[in-house]
Amino acid sequence: MNPPAAPVGAPLAVTMGEPAGIGGEIVLRAWLRRGDVPPFFVIDDAERLRRIADDLRIDVPVATVSGPDDVSALFPKSIPVFHRPLPANPVAGRPDPANAQAVVASIETAVGLACDGAAAGVVTNPISKEALYGAGFTFPGHTEFLGALAGEDATPVMMLACADLRVVPVTIHVSLAEAIRTLDTGRIVDAATITAAALTTDFGIDRPRLAVAGLNPHAGEGGAMGHEDAEIVAPAVAELRARGIDAFGPAPPDTLFAPTARTGYDAAICMYHDQALIPLKTLDFDGGVNVTLGLPFVRTSPDHGTAFDIAGTGRAREASLVAALRMAAAIADHRAAART
Amino acid sequence: MNPPAAPVGAPLAVTMGEPAGIGGEIVLRAWLRRGDVPPFFVIDDAERLRRIADDLRIDVPVATVSGPDDVSALFPKSIPVFHRPLPANPVAGRPDPANAQAVVASIETAVGLACDGAAAGVVTNPISKEALYGAGFTFPGHTEFLGALAGEDATPVMMLACADLRVVPVTIHVSLAEAIRTLDTGRIVDAATITAAALTTDFGIDRPRLAVAGLNPHAGEGGAMGHEDAEIVAPAVAELRARGIDAFGPAPPDTLFAPTARTGYDAAICMYHDQALIPLKTLDFDGGVNVTLGLPFVRTSPDHGTAFDIAGTGRAREASLVAALRMAAAIADHRAAART
Repeated sequence: MNPPAAPVGAPLAVTMGEPAGIGGEIVLRAWLRRGDVPPFFVIDDAERLRRIADDLRIDVPVATVSGPDDVSALFPKSIPVFHRPLPANPVAGRPDPANAQAVVASIETAVGLACDGAAAGVVTNPISKEALYGAGFTFPGHTEFLGALAGEDATPVMMLACADLRVVPVTIHVSLAEAIRTLDTGRIVDAATITAAALTTDFGIDRPRLAVAGLNPHAGEGGAMGHEDAEIVAPAVAELRARGIDAFGPAPPDTLFAPTARTGYDAAICMYHDQALIPLKTLDFDGGVNVTLGLPFVRTSPDHGTAFDIAGTGRAREASLVAALRMAAAIADHRAAART
Repeated sequence: MNPPAAPVGAPLAVTMGEPAGIGGEIVLRAWLRRGDVPPFFVIDDAERLRRIADDLRIDVPVATVSGPDDVSALFPKSIPVFHRPLPANPVAGRPDPANAQAVVASIETAVGLACDGAAAGVVTNPISKEALYGAGFTFPGHTEFLGALAGEDATPVMMLACADLRVVPVTIHVSLAEAIRTLDTGRIVDAATITAAALTTDFGIDRPRLAVAGLNPHAGEGGAMGHEDAEIVAPAVAELRARGIDAFGPAPPDTLFAPTARTGYDAAICMYHDQALIPLKTLDFDGGVNVTLGLPFVRTSPDHGTAFDIAGTGRAREASLVAALRMAAAIADHRAAART
């Protein structure tokens, strides 16, 4: 779990993501804010980025580089690209299976550089799982693929974060009925334990406070509205406290994300996808960041998808990618500080 | 369903609510903002209100009145109270069954005055259902009791509203598993149809737009995350549109409450309690209002409970009650305008 630390000031590696999506546009726009974002390079097809810059009139010079060492000198003047030519010319909104392998390879390259310490961390552009399944990609998503790349010791945990709130969904991309069926005490404890550790190493919070949301309205109200809060969630909170983690709950979900309540914890452990995502996106739709905790390398991503419906139109906003770049750099700094 | 309209300028009737809760404190504080709230009277024990004013040093003269006609002259100088003496002296935080009948009678009196047109509407202070069950109160809550008082024609529908958002939960105070089990197309259609009508008559919106939230993450993502969105929610949206109601959905729940998305509808029809309550309380914890749609009389209430934990300490805030008073008056005005 302890790779060589990236040297302070190492650049971030940004993946291509699905080339039919908005990844290219937003990474060019993010570079335009280079005074405010940490140095990064993109593992992508330099020609396609030039075409996007031309088509959408985004004034960004594209420079190819052969290694991370060249990035810091180049970054102020042009966007540095590890050139990985795509077999097929991408068409906005229409993923092409011919490019799937290159999309996957971009992620693998980024992870390899981060594990070697050549990159400070990995920032991934959105992928389309459907477009990759044809190429033998068998993971439910980015997070699980990164976990596999990290090896057996890693237990990836997804956190969504914005300026005012951090949330960790214990169950994620399953139906609500399945989320209820599969929720168990061990999963809550595992996710919360990894979260607590990461809040310290990655976010610099000495003694993190965790709120554990209930599953049911009013956290079950003493059993009147469901038994899971008493039988599944409460024992998880007890176990976390026995481990020395400052956790409270099961907390009534509806009041947990109100402004005053949010000041009472560093992260909320949520029982299902929308319990976590609704408050986050209600507060900050554009600036949310997806962070993978529990990996030996730093990984963040924007909190949105490929946005095929607006890809190529110039309407995509770079706010979430910019936030993801900043958060990755901040996490890398915290990890570096913890090692010294 | 069409009682005599309250005369324009008729006062609002405010109920006592649970006398061991914060109702008395917040109604006194609301009166202190009398320049900014519509005229109201309280159906309560005048002596207990005087004691609360003394104990918490809230400078409010309490005057007893014998009918709504006396309210407008009195209101600028003192809080008008329909005196209903309580059998037992209330203790903050400790509901006394001896007072339960008076709590219920306060609601019945307010509804009677509103139905007679003597009051512009009913604003209810929070009750404790547990404290009333001993007195033979058999309803799950205020909303159902008010529906019963209104008679067979009424189908009460709970809406929560703040400045930026209106939400209507189709299932309410049941476990999340039970909400999924009992959700059906007819219930969604009924709640949405009553909501659409009320947005016109009560909120003055000529052609209301309804968002119907999905049940599952990403509204089921084509069946990959649950079948209910396609099988239960989508047919409800189709039926609403067939009825001429401007509805869309099933909408992915996580993005539905983001700032830009909120501008696309006048109310969101939500599938379960926390899907509705989380975004509302995330946005506005203090100013939310509970409105009962589908009743022949106007009814609002603050969006909080009896708050036994802080009752009597002076820490209770009147913001939600003030918002409830203003919304009740606005709804009464819209109904009056629709009748002329």
